[in-house]
Amino acid sequence: MPAEGQLNTGVITREGEMTMNTTGAKQYAFLGLGNMGRALAGAALAEGRGVTVWNRTPGKSAELEERGAVAAESLEDALRSSPVVVACLFDLASVEEQLFGHADLLRGRVLVNLTTTNPEESRKIGRWAAENGVRYLDGGIMATPGMIGREGSQILYSGEEAVFEEERDLLDLWGESRYFGSDAGLASLWDLAILAGMYVMYAGFFQGAAMVGSEGVKAVDFAAIAQPFLRSMTEFLPVQAQVIDSGSYEHGGQSLEFSDLGKMVRAADDQGVSPRAVQMVQDLLREQIDAGFGHEDFERIFEGFRGGNQ
Amino acid sequence: MPAEGQLNTGVITREGEMTMNTTGAKQYAFLGLGNMGRALAGAALAEGRGVTVWNRTPGKSAELEERGAVAAESLEDALRSSPVVVACLFDLASVEEQLFGHADLLRGRVLVNLTTTNPEESRKIGRWAAENGVRYLDGGIMATPGMIGREGSQILYSGEEAVFEEERDLLDLWGESRYFGSDAGLASLWDLAILAGMYVMYAGFFQGAAMVGSEGVKAVDFAAIAQPFLRSMTEFLPVQAQVIDSGSYEHGGQSLEFSDLGKMVRAADDQGVSPRAVQMVQDLLREQIDAGFGHEDFERIFEGFRGGNQ
Repeated sequence: MPAEGQLNTGVITREGEMTMNTTGAKQYAFLGLGNMGRALAGAALAEGRGVTVWNRTPGKSAELEERGAVAAESLEDALRSSPVVVACLFDLASVEEQLFGHADLLRGRVLVNLTTTNPEESRKIGRWAAENGVRYLDGGIMATPGMIGREGSQILYSGEEAVFEEERDLLDLWGESRYFGSDAGLASLWDLAILAGMYVMYAGFFQGAAMVGSEGVKAVDFAAIAQPFLRSMTEFLPVQAQVIDSGSYEHGGQSLEFSDLGKMVRAADDQGVSPRAVQMVQDLLREQIDAGFGHEDFERIFEGFRGGNQ
Repeated sequence: MPAEGQLNTGVITREGEMTMNTTGAKQYAFLGLGNMGRALAGAALAEGRGVTVWNRTPGKSAELEERGAVAAESLEDALRSSPVVVACLFDLASVEEQLFGHADLLRGRVLVNLTTTNPEESRKIGRWAAENGVRYLDGGIMATPGMIGREGSQILYSGEEAVFEEERDLLDLWGESRYFGSDAGLASLWDLAILAGMYVMYAGFFQGAAMVGSEGVKAVDFAAIAQPFLRSMTEFLPVQAQVIDSGSYEHGGQSLEFSDLGKMVRAADDQGVSPRAVQMVQDLLREQIDAGFGHEDFERIFEGFRGGNQ
């Protein structure tokens, strides 16, 4: 913990100007002190940055204050404290409620918004920022709070590219930083797309665990064999991606007909287990087979997603 | 390729007796010469075993014959040739059609059946074998034909444990051999359960690729980021398994409410992509939340599989 007065003595001289405290540390405002917000602010404090924090409901900042953060008396004070504002709020409604009324205070400042929002919500915030002269970067965090600043933490960004470049010395404190483009919704879209893959993978693992579980096999015993297998099977994902990008599903790979999962659905049913996860894949397969593509590659089930809402 | 006469000169002296050819190599009959059947027989030939092959439709054995296999004139000749019969046929109907009428020839011999069958089908063959004095081992192959005999190939077995132990010197030629118990259906159940996890994982990856694909992102570019992430996320599977086995979903992990995938479903919809894979997980989540378990751990969605057909 730094000695009092060494840090957090920066004052903002005029809006938008980079402000240093007496030790020359950059100054940041962190809005939202849930588990993730505290982890983000904590990583900045750990590197000696000047940190002002604010949370809508009080009582969340004690540990950060002990580590050198300044707790702002008001949201307005927090916004005024720093040229760079990092928001990690509850949802879009929180962002609208807490920030949209303060466009004048945010004008010319950088807003790095790590609140979990869907792409359309991020785009809405991006439009508001553009209309109000707020320099906007939207981020999607692919890490748990405990992973922030550690190996494996990734944060995806989109919005103003210059902001991404200028603030890398902050962003890189949290994890690996990736930039996806100026459309503010892209980071969220990537984030949700990758997490969709993860949640669906988890459901598939549970499907399998339930199938062998019906014969009294423990889930940990299933995991001991299934986990190394699934890990190694992820190596086929880039190969499948090449097939998808090629514009053809006739590369002589495993065919849709060969892949038919009727046996799996039946086995789950026979064991008194719901086949719902494999049924989802089987539906995708059957649609393509029924449409006459049974001889084409398995990857054709991708078209069942691209085909729109079903 | 071995010199003529060196191999495959073994003759069966009387039923069930271990037969050696002139070089002392063990003698095996391989039934079914699809891609997988040929790979299995080829691995035995590569290690100098005596191999007799048979396929219902002719013309599949030329390459194996060049490598030293004997092509049987008839199924009966094939069955008589060896104390150990390896079957890799099309489906249960093929097994019934080709083997059930030859119980007398198979009595006392070992039947290693690697035909893809579901657990109930494997059990049916196991019961027939027990009733007819056929020593039965059922196998589920977790490998492509090209992987047979290589790193990463796994074959799961169930049935007569003594057969598994006695024939390890054959089985281990094909890949890592694992035994799951005397219930002949267990290998198939494990096989289908693990493959269910794999197919569902693939569908999840396609879901994500379609989501970013709606913004023109190539699937290979999605894979470049999603694959390492999904691979590392498989490390949580054994942890999730521990939660499932514990009998409680109140370990303070990520809650069902926090995991709500409404944002992902919405994002896919907004982008004109079918959310069907994440919707499957979201349905599992909502059922548990609606039943009042929203504060419990994410792993509770496992109960939606155990709950039976839905």
